[in-house]
Amino acid sequence: VDRIDTLVVTRHDLRRIVRAVGLNTLMDHTIENLHAALAVRDESATTIKPRDGFHLAGQEPGVFEWMPIMKGDQRITLKVVSYRPGNPVRFGMPTIVATNSVYEASTGHLLAMLDGVFATALRTGAASAIASRILAMPDSRTVGIIGCGAQAVTQLHALTRAFEVERALVFDVRPANAASYAARVSFLEVDVQVATIAEIEEQADIICTATSVDAGRGPVLAGTGVRDWVHVNAVGSDLPGKTELPLHFLQRSLVCPDFPAQALVEGECQQLGPDDIGPSLAELVQNEDRYRDWRQRATVFDSTGFALEDQIVTEVILQCAHEVGVGTRISLENVMGPPMDPYAYVLSLDDSNPWCTDHTASPRHSAGV
Amino acid sequence: VDRIDTLVVTRHDLRRIVRAVGLNTLMDHTIENLHAALAVRDESATTIKPRDGFHLAGQEPGVFEWMPIMKGDQRITLKVVSYRPGNPVRFGMPTIVATNSVYEASTGHLLAMLDGVFATALRTGAASAIASRILAMPDSRTVGIIGCGAQAVTQLHALTRAFEVERALVFDVRPANAASYAARVSFLEVDVQVATIAEIEEQADIICTATSVDAGRGPVLAGTGVRDWVHVNAVGSDLPGKTELPLHFLQRSLVCPDFPAQALVEGECQQLGPDDIGPSLAELVQNEDRYRDWRQRATVFDSTGFALEDQIVTEVILQCAHEVGVGTRISLENVMGPPMDPYAYVLSLDDSNPWCTDHTASPRHSAGV
Repeated sequence: VDRIDTLVVTRHDLRRIVRAVGLNTLMDHTIENLHAALAVRDESATTIKPRDGFHLAGQEPGVFEWMPIMKGDQRITLKVVSYRPGNPVRFGMPTIVATNSVYEASTGHLLAMLDGVFATALRTGAASAIASRILAMPDSRTVGIIGCGAQAVTQLHALTRAFEVERALVFDVRPANAASYAARVSFLEVDVQVATIAEIEEQADIICTATSVDAGRGPVLAGTGVRDWVHVNAVGSDLPGKTELPLHFLQRSLVCPDFPAQALVEGECQQLGPDDIGPSLAELVQNEDRYRDWRQRATVFDSTGFALEDQIVTEVILQCAHEVGVGTRISLENVMGPPMDPYAYVLSLDDSNPWCTDHTASPRHSAGV
Repeated sequence: VDRIDTLVVTRHDLRRIVRAVGLNTLMDHTIENLHAALAVRDESATTIKPRDGFHLAGQEPGVFEWMPIMKGDQRITLKVVSYRPGNPVRFGMPTIVATNSVYEASTGHLLAMLDGVFATALRTGAASAIASRILAMPDSRTVGIIGCGAQAVTQLHALTRAFEVERALVFDVRPANAASYAARVSFLEVDVQVATIAEIEEQADIICTATSVDAGRGPVLAGTGVRDWVHVNAVGSDLPGKTELPLHFLQRSLVCPDFPAQALVEGECQQLGPDDIGPSLAELVQNEDRYRDWRQRATVFDSTGFALEDQIVTEVILQCAHEVGVGTRISLENVMGPPMDPYAYVLSLDDSNPWCTDHTASPRHSAGV
């Protein structure tokens, strides 16, 4: 363990990883590792704090949140994430902006940092693939996409890793987003058609809702014309009051929350009483056979996104960075001097002084904040 | 505002700032800006969440915490901080390891990051100087230091910026820490003598307790032989159950917490009922004259450390970085491609493609996590 510097996987490093490893391998590893973590999930070995944050004012509602998880008193992963639905139009930026950080629990040292925009999309897709593999018909061919933003790209990608997807029917309240979706998922070689919600309900085996619908303005799906065996991955929920699915549909479906404590506050489960809520994703994975009959009936994965997913995708990307040999070291923490002297290092005039053994000095400096 | 990259003030940058600006100027700016922020503190413009975190097991108790503050819906400062009293002996690392991050609230973009080891020590010293300037005798000459770790260095430094300190009497349960203290504060030109707690009580005008005493193992001060006008900065409290001062001393003193909601959980105020607690640091600053008579009597600054201090010191250091022209840009977030395509940038093969206008690529890459 390097307790002096911090490994940053920059977006350039991320691109090198994708070139070397491929998106499919990254997605597959995330699905496999998350599935394995859910299968053995030992509550005593992993501590997850429900996410907390600031509610943001401005033109659109939004949140700024921290999502911490500690694994076995060894490593702490902290995602810091913003949900700002105005970002794409106002700033040309993603709706979800995030960074994932890993700390060594025994010292508090920041071991590694990486982008959370790509990582969040990847892990949210992976979670839907895991739920769908258990609850959707194995021969699902047609996927419906409601809400064609960034998350919709990885929803379809992840589903193609678990199903022989032939066709995607896609809808967005902003027609331009639906129209641009085919190009964004062209690498998947799926037939993408813009459709109405009614057409999606009528034809889709699996539906993903990934919208920025305002709190109290849902549902985004009627739920009356769906196929008997439809499985819905509802991934848009991330704010109290925001839900995407109609109550009557939830009530007749098996509803599986990713993280029940959080889903009750932010997910589709807000609409339900305790008796209407099905197994958690971990319980589902641990008892697949018990829920297999639900493949013939309506099911919902209530995906609010939780810290275990962030921990897993962070580990996957860091492992790939290690294997590919990329990463950028930064000298962030002032941990070089004698441990009881916060001034020693910054006062030292001589770069070669005995306790200053840091030879990874950053080569480039630019002015300005 | 740069919404593409993140400015990192590395420890090398920090050293350049100290060389250019000087430690005294940094401390003075932190004291002045924190005083100004406390003086005008408008609760509606600044939102502070009480810190939360993981309690850590292992050989010593410890915590891993996040301390968020939002200023006027514009900037969010988040300190992530560990308190691990075993660090110096076990790992040669500071007891407190931290990083401070600044986010743009409107987008969630990580604007800047810097070391929090130096910053925490600086701001904790600054807070004590502000409280002492109001509550201690203006002609205080002798400072007592109980607990000679990293925080003790900046306690004495800060006090020398507010008082004509001539002498420091210092004690530590580990004699080696007391013995090494004089060298660590030699730049202050104060006469430093190792002393007993009884000698400190008898002679000090101002006492700083900055210990890693275990929860339930205090107090670290008898409080029976102190001078009538003694002012105590109790800065060690950071854990539920951990306190440094005896109840009888608190009960006859004016006790001023930095952040009352937190001091009731982690500070000396844990020992007190609501009626025994004096004004907060902000109230003290806003009503200096009302508390001036307490200079002749025993007073306590119950310093648990709070996010406003971290926000101020972060701004001071970033402003200095800007003026000195240092800082290192990293390309952390995957925000380069079309905002609704998390894969576009990482899949792009051509660095000159139209939406890839990032010309701040990191020049150095090293293998390994």
